[in-house]
Amino acid sequence: MTAVAPDNVDPIGSAKAEPSLTPILNLVADGMGQVNAVIIDRMQSRIPLIPELAGHLIAGGGKRLRPMLTLACADLVGYAGDRHYKLAAAVEFIHTATLLHDDVVDGSGLRRGRKTANIIWGNSASVLVGDFLFSRSFELMVEAESLKVLHILSNASAVIAEGEVNQLTAQRKIDTSEEQYLDIIGAKTAALFAAACRISAVVADRSEEDEQALDIYGRNLGIAFQLIDDAIDYESDGATMGKDAGDDFRDGKVTLPVILAYARGSDEDKAFWKAAIAGHKISDDDLAHATGLLRQTGAIADTMARARHYGQQAIDALAMFDAGAAKAALTEAVEFAIARAY
Amino acid sequence: MTAVAPDNVDPIGSAKAEPSLTPILNLVADGMGQVNAVIIDRMQSRIPLIPELAGHLIAGGGKRLRPMLTLACADLVGYAGDRHYKLAAAVEFIHTATLLHDDVVDGSGLRRGRKTANIIWGNSASVLVGDFLFSRSFELMVEAESLKVLHILSNASAVIAEGEVNQLTAQRKIDTSEEQYLDIIGAKTAALFAAACRISAVVADRSEEDEQALDIYGRNLGIAFQLIDDAIDYESDGATMGKDAGDDFRDGKVTLPVILAYARGSDEDKAFWKAAIAGHKISDDDLAHATGLLRQTGAIADTMARARHYGQQAIDALAMFDAGAAKAALTEAVEFAIARAY
Repeated sequence: MTAVAPDNVDPIGSAKAEPSLTPILNLVADGMGQVNAVIIDRMQSRIPLIPELAGHLIAGGGKRLRPMLTLACADLVGYAGDRHYKLAAAVEFIHTATLLHDDVVDGSGLRRGRKTANIIWGNSASVLVGDFLFSRSFELMVEAESLKVLHILSNASAVIAEGEVNQLTAQRKIDTSEEQYLDIIGAKTAALFAAACRISAVVADRSEEDEQALDIYGRNLGIAFQLIDDAIDYESDGATMGKDAGDDFRDGKVTLPVILAYARGSDEDKAFWKAAIAGHKISDDDLAHATGLLRQTGAIADTMARARHYGQQAIDALAMFDAGAAKAALTEAVEFAIARAY
Repeated sequence: MTAVAPDNVDPIGSAKAEPSLTPILNLVADGMGQVNAVIIDRMQSRIPLIPELAGHLIAGGGKRLRPMLTLACADLVGYAGDRHYKLAAAVEFIHTATLLHDDVVDGSGLRRGRKTANIIWGNSASVLVGDFLFSRSFELMVEAESLKVLHILSNASAVIAEGEVNQLTAQRKIDTSEEQYLDIIGAKTAALFAAACRISAVVADRSEEDEQALDIYGRNLGIAFQLIDDAIDYESDGATMGKDAGDDFRDGKVTLPVILAYARGSDEDKAFWKAAIAGHKISDDDLAHATGLLRQTGAIADTMARARHYGQQAIDALAMFDAGAAKAALTEAVEFAIARAY
């Protein structure tokens, strides 16, 4: 047997440290203090259940990646004002509202390693508090006084909802194509990443070209991020991932790893996937068998390769911007996203 | 026994015809053609389930009272532009999204005499299509290019969601006070009526005083409307009301008729109401007993008297506006609302 370095120890003399979120976290640390203050302030309500439920999710260890992207992109384009704090909070509220509704739709019981709000307070409360946060996000956008930002984020919200409905329709359909799937996650996940990045160029009054570059950066990062999530769902467990391992499998969700493994599988394998996606394979043994098939067919490795492809496009979209701390941090954030769970 | 004129025949020589919605329907007929075109156009999506589900509710015989109010109030303040068509459609989309989520929260099976969307397509689809319509409503508002209208409607949306959560919290609480209940319906129902009316003065660039008068008109009409709905829930059946009779009762909803009957009841009656609101009285006999108690205590009649009180305040709020077809139609719309189900 070959000696293998333990996972958590950097091998001596390694050429480059593992990519991390540390540079972007440092870049936006002060700004995120402002954003978090807005988030805490605006999730308040005279109805105690609202901050209680919203706070459970908002305080629940999310990385707040989307508002961080808004701030880092604002730094990249040299924005010196303070309107982006409210907008970044609005983006996080849209994301939080979406998560609350998602967990109801999926019947999820665990997120970020904690019980979901729908399990604790019920589906009704989750739906309504999601609606509240969604409304609050638009109030915040109105305060930032940019119709263009309102246009971008209201459109992104509609696209997200369309993507969710599209995914619901595709649910349990084993014949979903890779193209259809990319369309779904482009709407469901990447649209908000794209909008979160783009609006920083809008408040900074930068060119349409800059707006588009940041949109492309966010969109590709979002797709890469989602594809890695899809792979991790079969490769991790609740403790490390913060949600139930195999959730996608048990929900009959057709994600890219499944699409690839199904296309590459034997007739016997295809029959297994059909039954699984139809909801007839939900035991731990079934999940283990599925994970085995995904590895044998290279579906997991190739999903990650696809993620690296989109990640590289995100990095390339930054080419037009000046070198500096913001560009380096946004680049490393992509490298981190596509290096997860290796 | 005294001879009583049959319900559906006007007694000869009656001083005044029954109030009706005909004047306001005639007033806004052309404008509603424009609004309906926007509604049909903007509920479209490349995801077929969205227009299918949304169309079920939107085409399902709703009176579109809220957009009608926007148009009628725009007429009242002499607005001559066309921005109010999109705004009226946005108001209807917010209302429709709220209904879709409401039916999920309440587990309702019948609305306007038809099966609810959540029964036909499931809760998940109803939640997500509601989110889509809500996003679309903001897109429409952005197109109308008024940050002030966006402020009013995003705030109204947040207030509605707060009211829904408040009602969820109060559900099955027999000790809800009349004041608390008015607070709930003020948020849940009246806030959107108020906003629908107010925004017409905003697009017409009228004074803050005009805005406030229309807000007060809409708010009081909304409360009157909801109180009559509460009374009708115990006085009607699915065929005439278009929703299940006794729904509120079986859902353990504490509405004003129940609050009044509980306060006025004997110890035995109070025990009945407690058990009913706790969910232990759901048979047809229980509903009949409840309706009997509501009549004996005068709770139904007094709920309707309260509705007339708020309706009168709505009418009084119009005093500052010039007489004419719009004012007459808006006045009769209130009279119609409070005369329903007599």
